[in-house]
Amino acid sequence: MSGHDARGSQDERPLGRLSATGRVEAFSDGVMAIAITLLVLELKVPVAAGPGELLGLLLGRWPSYVAYLAAFLTIGIIWLNHHTLMTKIARFDTRLHWLNLLLLLGVATLPFPTALVADYVADQSSNASIAAAAYGLTAMLMALPWGFMWRHLRDHPELLEPEYDAAHASVELRRGSLGVPIYAAATLVSFVQPVAALALYAAIAAIYAITSQGWSAPSASETRAKAKE
Amino acid sequence: MSGHDARGSQDERPLGRLSATGRVEAFSDGVMAIAITLLVLELKVPVAAGPGELLGLLLGRWPSYVAYLAAFLTIGIIWLNHHTLMTKIARFDTRLHWLNLLLLLGVATLPFPTALVADYVADQSSNASIAAAAYGLTAMLMALPWGFMWRHLRDHPELLEPEYDAAHASVELRRGSLGVPIYAAATLVSFVQPVAALALYAAIAAIYAITSQGWSAPSASETRAKAKE
Amino acid sequence: MSGHDARGSQDERPLGRLSATGRVEAFSDGVMAIAITLLVLELKVPVAAGPGELLGLLLGRWPSYVAYLAAFLTIGIIWLNHHTLMTKIARFDTRLHWLNLLLLLGVATLPFPTALVADYVADQSSNASIAAAAYGLTAMLMALPWGFMWRHLRDHPELLEPEYDAAHASVELRRGSLGVPIYAAATLVSFVQPVAALALYAAIAAIYAITSQGWSAPSASETRAKAKE
Amino acid sequence: MSGHDARGSQDERPLGRLSATGRVEAFSDGVMAIAITLLVLELKVPVAAGPGELLGLLLGRWPSYVAYLAAFLTIGIIWLNHHTLMTKIARFDTRLHWLNLLLLLGVATLPFPTALVADYVADQSSNASIAAAAYGLTAMLMALPWGFMWRHLRDHPELLEPEYDAAHASVELRRGSLGVPIYAAATLVSFVQPVAALALYAAIAAIYAITSQGWSAPSASETRAKAKE
Repeated sequence: MSGHDARGSQDERPLGRLSATGRVEAFSDGVMAIAITLLVLELKVPVAAGPGELLGLLLGRWPSYVAYLAAFLTIGIIWLNHHTLMTKIARFDTRLHWLNLLLLLGVATLPFPTALVADYVADQSSNASIAAAAYGLTAMLMALPWGFMWRHLRDHPELLEPEYDAAHASVELRRGSLGVPIYAAATLVSFVQPVAALALYAAIAAIYAITSQGWSAPSASETRAKAKE
Repeated sequence: MSGHDARGSQDERPLGRLSATGRVEAFSDGVMAIAITLLVLELKVPVAAGPGELLGLLLGRWPSYVAYLAAFLTIGIIWLNHHTLMTKIARFDTRLHWLNLLLLLGVATLPFPTALVADYVADQSSNASIAAAAYGLTAMLMALPWGFMWRHLRDHPELLEPEYDAAHASVELRRGSLGVPIYAAATLVSFVQPVAALALYAAIAAIYAITSQGWSAPSASETRAKAKE
Repeated sequence: MSGHDARGSQDERPLGRLSATGRVEAFSDGVMAIAITLLVLELKVPVAAGPGELLGLLLGRWPSYVAYLAAFLTIGIIWLNHHTLMTKIARFDTRLHWLNLLLLLGVATLPFPTALVADYVADQSSNASIAAAAYGLTAMLMALPWGFMWRHLRDHPELLEPEYDAAHASVELRRGSLGVPIYAAATLVSFVQPVAALALYAAIAAIYAITSQGWSAPSASETRAKAKE
Repeated sequence: MSGHDARGSQDERPLGRLSATGRVEAFSDGVMAIAITLLVLELKVPVAAGPGELLGLLLGRWPSYVAYLAAFLTIGIIWLNHHTLMTKIARFDTRLHWLNLLLLLGVATLPFPTALVADYVADQSSNASIAAAAYGLTAMLMALPWGFMWRHLRDHPELLEPEYDAAHASVELRRGSLGVPIYAAATLVSFVQPVAALALYAAIAAIYAITSQGWSAPSASETRAKAKE
């Protein structure tokens, strides 16, 4: 956030607009940091374990740990992608504010289906499918706004930082639209093999992280910084 | 926040005052980000559902989801309006600090009546009315400080950023005073039709968001930035 | 925080030291914002209220609301005083870091005795005294570091911003040493009249807020800013 | 974070890279501030204490308080060390992002074994050892990334701020690799004397804090600032 301003003060660009982006970033960061940390509340301490029973009870709660790791990884990656997205946006209009709020709704809600999965994914009934599908639906909600955001940015490239244009937004739109069908497919798996769906959710996060342009590609400002060198 | 400073350093204005505003903003953002994320704790995992019973139990908790969405939207919009307010204030005096703390009290308390509504709004007795009314009263507490803040700013326009004056504060005072009677009316509905009151709370948040000047109107600094272009 | 830097860049002072203060401030703000917002989790929804019983159950939990308000006000004021303190410190050494961490320990722990008071202060036995005394002891823990901080700053005025000196630290030391005996006295009242002690805790917060120099007095940088005008 | 930028703007260095570091810092600070504050939720209010029984029940929960203090101290110190680490890193690449996320995973998870220890360390069975060992394993997870981070920085000194080089990273690598074997030894003690292991965890945090270079040594920017004076 400060980087924007400091950069701006070098380039003599009007600064007020960027400050708005800075605060959206700070608020979004806050929500994501809290959601990722609240996940731990779902790892419940077994109550009233008899002598020597704790280890068995803890091991029996293995779906908790898988769900915890999958959700932690998912929010961590969303945070990184959100960070990259923010460096490309120069100004927020009403629609972007709404879409960002929708994205935060998905992130903030994720601890709930994570707890559902932790409690029910090993259940020997349709409860396991319901829990795994609830996680998938929330992940779809979280994946949905990215495509809409990039479509809006493609149609309004004046909201982008000067280094980015409608063509860049089109590329990102294709990438950003993949999340929903991928999570939809995993959600369908929930109804056949709920534990496999849980493994898929973790795998999607891991694969997305490894291939993510958000991490390995130089950010806009780095590229510009290099160009100056 | 940094935008203030960077702007200030361009304009050669004294900076100390703004730093105070920056930290109020950061603390307020923190409280609002936490409150909006804590709402998810109210979405409780049904305990010990029998085989195949989870879906029914989850669907039976629909008031949770409506209350969650209404409260999420409400805090999201308050955050946006707070952000706009902050960009207009150059300096905090004692009274503004108190009023801001009162506003944060309302926001931080909202998860409690949200949980009440989630548990009792579908109850077939006066419990539903009490729960819905508790939400309305907290919303009124959250709406109350806006009018007082703008009245104080109208009477002390020297606390405003240079682009704003007492006349602007008068306009905002009128707008900011609407929240309390609107929520009071919805609270009265609680005693007749608690579920309708819940729908009203969600609708108020949505309507306010759509019509809000906080989003669609250019912020002060944007206007100034454009004037410079 | 940004104010410091921006100010520094005007004055051409070395900036690295201030950046450390900035991050201490951000971390402290985070802890205080979270602690003040977690207080709401202590306002518990009455479980399984019979038809029409909710209002009675809610009203019967009045000590919850008083304890909530007292703790909210206390943390709010500590935040404001902490903010003022931070504007006066140019650099943190090891001891200040420890004392600040001790202060944050007190703040972060406050939700626990607040919940104790909420559950037990209306109890018709010594439980009420124990709960009220636990609140008082935590408040003393929170009040303790202020005196030690100002004593250290008086002995090491080079840690202070240039506008402040050992004499200023001596004045603050006197003011900052008042908190512990005041809370100790209120803690003693717990053993006689626990409800009165709760009222005292709320009153101490309110009185301190009204008389606080942290709010009404111009901050150092404001004074300096005015001097420049 | 702002310090970076302001410093950068003095030195005319490219700024975009630092902005990324700033936001990693802010997100990490958020997660650590939340984790340290969530620890209080583990201090549970005794339910339905009979008349005059509260004091005994509270005192009987002494392992809660020791575990709380140990975990609070541990996260506090990690925060300080993280802060020092951040001031030395100029740019994050993919591997550093992953290692930082792994570190945050350890920090965010710590409240869970802390609650386990609080509930079971005084248990007269192997449950106590399991609880204490779970804490030790999480502490090892938290200690693990430091060594890997410094190894990566030693091999890629271009990621470091200009004042630091591969030799500095080698020294830090040795220091940063100590945490895992120390916590591994304490974890082994869990199986013999779980309460002694708990005491060790608290002692490790305290000793590390006292000897930490993160606090007493001048930070890079301070050194540079002094060199300019």
